[in-house]
Amino acid sequence: MSDLLLPNERIDQLYADDIQIIQSSEVFSFSLDAVLLANFASLPKKGQIIDLCAGNGAVGLFISRNTQASITGIELQERLADMGRRSIQLNDLGSQMNLLTLDLKLVTSAIKKDSIDLIVCNPPYFKELPTNHTNPNPYLAIARHEIHATLADVIQQSAGLLKSNGKLALVHRPERLVDILETMKHYKIIPKRIQFVYPKEGKEANTVLVEGIHKGKPDGLKILPPLYVYDDQGEYLPTVRGMLYGN
Amino acid sequence: MSDLLLPNERIDQLYADDIQIIQSSEVFSFSLDAVLLANFASLPKKGQIIDLCAGNGAVGLFISRNTQASITGIELQERLADMGRRSIQLNDLGSQMNLLTLDLKLVTSAIKKDSIDLIVCNPPYFKELPTNHTNPNPYLAIARHEIHATLADVIQQSAGLLKSNGKLALVHRPERLVDILETMKHYKIIPKRIQFVYPKEGKEANTVLVEGIHKGKPDGLKILPPLYVYDDQGEYLPTVRGMLYGN
Repeated sequence: MSDLLLPNERIDQLYADDIQIIQSSEVFSFSLDAVLLANFASLPKKGQIIDLCAGNGAVGLFISRNTQASITGIELQERLADMGRRSIQLNDLGSQMNLLTLDLKLVTSAIKKDSIDLIVCNPPYFKELPTNHTNPNPYLAIARHEIHATLADVIQQSAGLLKSNGKLALVHRPERLVDILETMKHYKIIPKRIQFVYPKEGKEANTVLVEGIHKGKPDGLKILPPLYVYDDQGEYLPTVRGMLYGN
Repeated sequence: MSDLLLPNERIDQLYADDIQIIQSSEVFSFSLDAVLLANFASLPKKGQIIDLCAGNGAVGLFISRNTQASITGIELQERLADMGRRSIQLNDLGSQMNLLTLDLKLVTSAIKKDSIDLIVCNPPYFKELPTNHTNPNPYLAIARHEIHATLADVIQQSAGLLKSNGKLALVHRPERLVDILETMKHYKIIPKRIQFVYPKEGKEANTVLVEGIHKGKPDGLKILPPLYVYDDQGEYLPTVRGMLYGN
């Protein structure tokens, strides 16, 4: 397989879904958030799924075993999209998945509007402010900071792509909860399921998962049971270990 | 003490705070939500606290032991406010607390604007819709349904009463989370602390506590560790037992 790797890339494995994924700490490697999102989203059995801000394609790769839907990743950075395309090849998923190098603000030039069943997105978390010290590594800076895509861009484009009753599942930081809910509602994606992720018992949440339904009815928001990541010894708790290593 | 009681009233005790409270199952009795709110709100050491939708005064009575601030309850229904005033007398809290019979929409006729340090509110939870079967008991119907006061009324009046940096702490149902956050932000009460309450492990949240700061900075929302009420045997877990019975 090594002919699939560029210098300083490695192949990591998500054992739970038997997926291999090409990564590079210099460029991009998936985080636990991608795994949490893949496990949280309500997957359609078939139809079309879009992974916005796909990075190296991690979320799409992780969900591919649990749906027969086609999965298209949208990633602005060619270097990351290229890693993702090689991972698709490595896992022999070419008939189900593809990854487009594309600015998400132009996504409806490539993907038909009102056609998508589910959008998953692990977007840049941090507001780009002039006073911020953004990441000096441009690959990571673009992936983590709202330089080329804001939360509003993500949600607006999602609303354009989704069918009525199609779903958007996001992972983000709890500090942005009000923004997330307000912006989703503004674009008629009605929040329906929220789960907070806590690093360990007794700590504040550091991650939130939100799923909304495009043009859904305004009622029926559910707050799922909380998810804890680590025990007191800093070991993964069983639920998260299951997501990473299988049960 | 029995000369303080009307027919079908009883005196209940919140042991944790050594407070006695006059209740009547025919009219109004406090719920766990009042106890949760009293324990959640960030109490100022002194100054002025308002309890909106005070009912029989439970929340104000429960917090009275933990602050030297003056506490004024606002309650529309004279029958409930009268019970609360007798509880204030019963606990000898007349120098710290009072309870006004007043429509909260008229609250600024009695309370000076921009003067309050903390508002606590356990409002009616249920949207009043023409198709609803509201509670046939009018006391309970008004306390539980948005007949005379909506969420927006509560938040708008709170914004009028609060100083800059004064706080509003609410207890409500998670289904209304988007409404709550959006309406608070609209009236410049910036959500800062949220805690979800789950009936037991593995269940969805059935209660949410939200605190916001009037004219606060827009960042820094925290999702506190989750709170569980019951164990698998249906017994109160230690945190909640402590709120009710002391430690």
